[in-house]
Amino acid sequence: MSNEIKVNQELNFASSIVLYDSIAEKFNIKLAKLVISNDGFYIEFNTNELISSNDLDAIEQSCLNKIKENKSIVLSTKKVTLNKYEEYFKNTNPNLNYQFYEFDKQIIFNFGNELKTEFNTKQIHFFKILSIGGTKWLNDDKNENLVRINAIAFDNKEDGKQFLLEQKERRERDHRKVGEDLKIFTLNPLAGQGLPIWLPRGFALRDAISKFINKIEFKYLFNAVATPILGSVELYKTSGHYFHYKENMFPEMHLADGEDLILRPMTCPHHVLVYKNAMRSYRDLPVRLSEDSILHRYEASGGLTGLERVRMMDLADIHIFARHDQIKSEIKRTYEMLKEIHKTLNIEFSSVDLSLHDANDKEKFFDNALMWKNAEQQLREALQELNVEFKEEIGEAAFYGPKIDFQAKTALGHVVTVSTIQLDFLLPDRFQLTYKNEDNKEDIPVMIHVSAIGTYERFVAVLLEQTKGKLPLWLAPDQVCLIPINNDALSYSLEVEKQLRNHMIRTKLDDSLERLSKKIREAQIQKIPYQLIIGKEEVENKTIAVRKYGEESTIKMSLNDFIKLISEQINEYK
Amino acid sequence: MSNEIKVNQELNFASSIVLYDSIAEKFNIKLAKLVISNDGFYIEFNTNELISSNDLDAIEQSCLNKIKENKSIVLSTKKVTLNKYEEYFKNTNPNLNYQFYEFDKQIIFNFGNELKTEFNTKQIHFFKILSIGGTKWLNDDKNENLVRINAIAFDNKEDGKQFLLEQKERRERDHRKVGEDLKIFTLNPLAGQGLPIWLPRGFALRDAISKFINKIEFKYLFNAVATPILGSVELYKTSGHYFHYKENMFPEMHLADGEDLILRPMTCPHHVLVYKNAMRSYRDLPVRLSEDSILHRYEASGGLTGLERVRMMDLADIHIFARHDQIKSEIKRTYEMLKEIHKTLNIEFSSVDLSLHDANDKEKFFDNALMWKNAEQQLREALQELNVEFKEEIGEAAFYGPKIDFQAKTALGHVVTVSTIQLDFLLPDRFQLTYKNEDNKEDIPVMIHVSAIGTYERFVAVLLEQTKGKLPLWLAPDQVCLIPINNDALSYSLEVEKQLRNHMIRTKLDDSLERLSKKIREAQIQKIPYQLIIGKEEVENKTIAVRKYGEESTIKMSLNDFIKLISEQINEYK
Repeated sequence: MSNEIKVNQELNFASSIVLYDSIAEKFNIKLAKLVISNDGFYIEFNTNELISSNDLDAIEQSCLNKIKENKSIVLSTKKVTLNKYEEYFKNTNPNLNYQFYEFDKQIIFNFGNELKTEFNTKQIHFFKILSIGGTKWLNDDKNENLVRINAIAFDNKEDGKQFLLEQKERRERDHRKVGEDLKIFTLNPLAGQGLPIWLPRGFALRDAISKFINKIEFKYLFNAVATPILGSVELYKTSGHYFHYKENMFPEMHLADGEDLILRPMTCPHHVLVYKNAMRSYRDLPVRLSEDSILHRYEASGGLTGLERVRMMDLADIHIFARHDQIKSEIKRTYEMLKEIHKTLNIEFSSVDLSLHDANDKEKFFDNALMWKNAEQQLREALQELNVEFKEEIGEAAFYGPKIDFQAKTALGHVVTVSTIQLDFLLPDRFQLTYKNEDNKEDIPVMIHVSAIGTYERFVAVLLEQTKGKLPLWLAPDQVCLIPINNDALSYSLEVEKQLRNHMIRTKLDDSLERLSKKIREAQIQKIPYQLIIGKEEVENKTIAVRKYGEESTIKMSLNDFIKLISEQINEYK
Repeated sequence: MSNEIKVNQELNFASSIVLYDSIAEKFNIKLAKLVISNDGFYIEFNTNELISSNDLDAIEQSCLNKIKENKSIVLSTKKVTLNKYEEYFKNTNPNLNYQFYEFDKQIIFNFGNELKTEFNTKQIHFFKILSIGGTKWLNDDKNENLVRINAIAFDNKEDGKQFLLEQKERRERDHRKVGEDLKIFTLNPLAGQGLPIWLPRGFALRDAISKFINKIEFKYLFNAVATPILGSVELYKTSGHYFHYKENMFPEMHLADGEDLILRPMTCPHHVLVYKNAMRSYRDLPVRLSEDSILHRYEASGGLTGLERVRMMDLADIHIFARHDQIKSEIKRTYEMLKEIHKTLNIEFSSVDLSLHDANDKEKFFDNALMWKNAEQQLREALQELNVEFKEEIGEAAFYGPKIDFQAKTALGHVVTVSTIQLDFLLPDRFQLTYKNEDNKEDIPVMIHVSAIGTYERFVAVLLEQTKGKLPLWLAPDQVCLIPINNDALSYSLEVEKQLRNHMIRTKLDDSLERLSKKIREAQIQKIPYQLIIGKEEVENKTIAVRKYGEESTIKMSLNDFIKLISEQINEYK
């Protein structure tokens, strides 16, 4: 995650020394680790004394006092050779470019270059200890207990306040928190790391999205298939994944009868097998295949994050096998489909990128100048004819062909690729795909890889972040909460539940023994769009009292009218 | 497959010798293998001369001539020790109890016991060569070419004729043939053995069934979840599968980070993890979970058959976690659900079996007399109160509890278990599942395993066999075939296709260059329920001409009326 507020690393380096000095005055420290990052800094240290979050205020005050002394600090660092700490960080944070420095007798890590500069604590106008907690040396359970103190410093108060607000917002929006609060998913080491379990409410949400995507795909003449989630090693040798992508794949399985199988990391080779299942003529093309496709990719355990980075994922996947003269029209109709999908899902693009090859780079890109020229021109023309604003990015194509990436900015300011359309000239060649052209001769089709929303896992993660879990009716895991006022209303409530369920309305009956006010509050916390409160009057008149999420008033109506109303709203994706 | 017509093995043994003598007269045979089975007999032999199905009539005639000679044949066999041929058969046909005999210098296999009897060819009243084809010695590509002749004999003509009719019926109904004709599924060694690829038409069929099942499950208050298809070795050690079921499981995968994972052979342990995800009180029970669940089971390659016996399967799976006092009511409502499902799917039961434990067998059944007594009585009472006719089968329970099996007889006379309801007291214990009872003390729930139709693979295999692919509208892969009379009708046809698709009607547009009569015939072969023929009149009046499968007449109507008509029929599962 990247901040909007930029953290001054030198200032935080100086502040970490203030913190270190404050602690060292009070506690007996054997060893300390200081880490400066884009999120502030932290110190880990060992001590025999008891420190807890109860000490936070005292330690912070002692730091603030030191800062007021306007003391000069010399930030002097020098590079040290690779050691086990660096190894550790390389393994767990492969994306961070830590450099290692010695500071007195402690080890300090710093992001920047080798450094020698003088700093005055009066430059620190904002200093905040964020947390105090326990940890283990190098995160290893076998190692000794350490105390970890997280803090942040700024050269002005406004940035500090803004940073804390953003932190709060980020915590509230974190899809892992929202996902836990709303019982969307869970992880369990007995199932395996990075293999999320979709709980009933999460499945309902995912299923609603998937049914919508599948419906649109059906409308746009895509043919859904279901292919095995395993492939033979031979399949991935033919596709090339076995040579270029193996480190992201799960281990091979050697079956007793001599077969070597592997969990598939992508669907393309299987859709190639569907294409090859029949003789194809120029009139049969384009062949448009879609699949909600289970994939497995081996990601380092340090990188796994909730639904965002997983080892098992479900991709809304599409492959089109087309003649070369159909590229432009296929791109255009696929774009129309994506537009319809994005509109309903309320996704706005921050940019559309046309990713081109770099003619000078013969290593990174498949070598066929004519192919590139033709393909890129077709993509460009398609975008122009669609009146789409786009920017061209040279050198950003895939190895096998140019692509269009649709980028969106999330609530937290991350840019994510929501959809992608990629041309592929290589896989049809590797699998020797053909069709009979008008002259009854064999031609090679082009393969177009499309994903409308990426994986359901990542999409739901972003969705929870965007909405904090306040989902529109058609996506809400529970659409209606039935609240009987007392036991006398239970039997009619069960009847209402049955009728709503018969109309495929996701209904939760709260027959707990709690008080009415508590039940209503609970339905609000769960962000259920409609609450139906059922009391004596409703039972007698066979009506219901409807209360919308976030509203105070209730409206009385017949059950049939309500079913009609809510069904219409759901069908219109409201 | 078992025949209705019983094959007399001794008579077929004698007939195989008649056939052998006939061939040996004409051709120079080095080595021959004679096999008698429930389907008749066959001879495999090598020869340098050319033999093909063109020789069928001549060889058959020569056999018939020999039969007319009323010659006596001494059927003399003796057991030989195990040899490589037997090994071969044991490996490929583990279910066949072949015994091996020497006959002159050839090797004869016979089903029966050691035998010495005299036979006269006049007892053979029906003799038919079924096929002549090529094969390889021991089916191994590396071995030499052999000729294989399949034949059958009976002691009366009627049985012979009936047998041939049944054979024809069986070939026509074989789901592999129907599945290929209707492009339902395919198998490809590059994907892996026993891992079917659902082609677009097959996916449409499977998806229609699955949506129906899921809808009914939803109505009956089941909560759908999606859980990983991998589990840790630890998970299966806890469940016990790792010790009792390992030979049916795929190989373990040892991940780089030290995790040991395995493809799941069943869903129960994962649903246990869902149950364990929350604290449960007596008011939360029953917890009803459903999942269309992908499973992998390692089956010997010799046993794999189309969609019927596979290594990857998709099970319509249900688990209920209930209090012991809820068993009976849960069984009853589950039965009501199964009844609704079976009625729509047109399944009639041949029997309902209540499978009980055997109190004398302490090995085969979990040892807890009180549990068994109570559980079996609850199942029995539930069936009685539902007025279901059932038979009790002692010793047929599962290790972990009693069960109810719903059996149906297929078109070919096989009895298959369509649905099952099983009580399980063991898994909740192994995973230490609990809930808080009314006295706020911990109690153990019972787990009820239910499957409404088994795996989609096997269900579709049986369905294709039952219907020969003539599926009702709501299940038909293509529900409507649009046939434009000429190119002038194409643009309106595309508009009709779009409107039908918008209403989720599976529509195929036949825009091939074939003649009208050929297109209509093709739609009949594909058994598409509705053909819409679109010509000049339809284009001008914006109407359609509807022809139902199997009918000769066409009815003219507006597109809207047709959409209304067909949508109603589909919604009513017609």
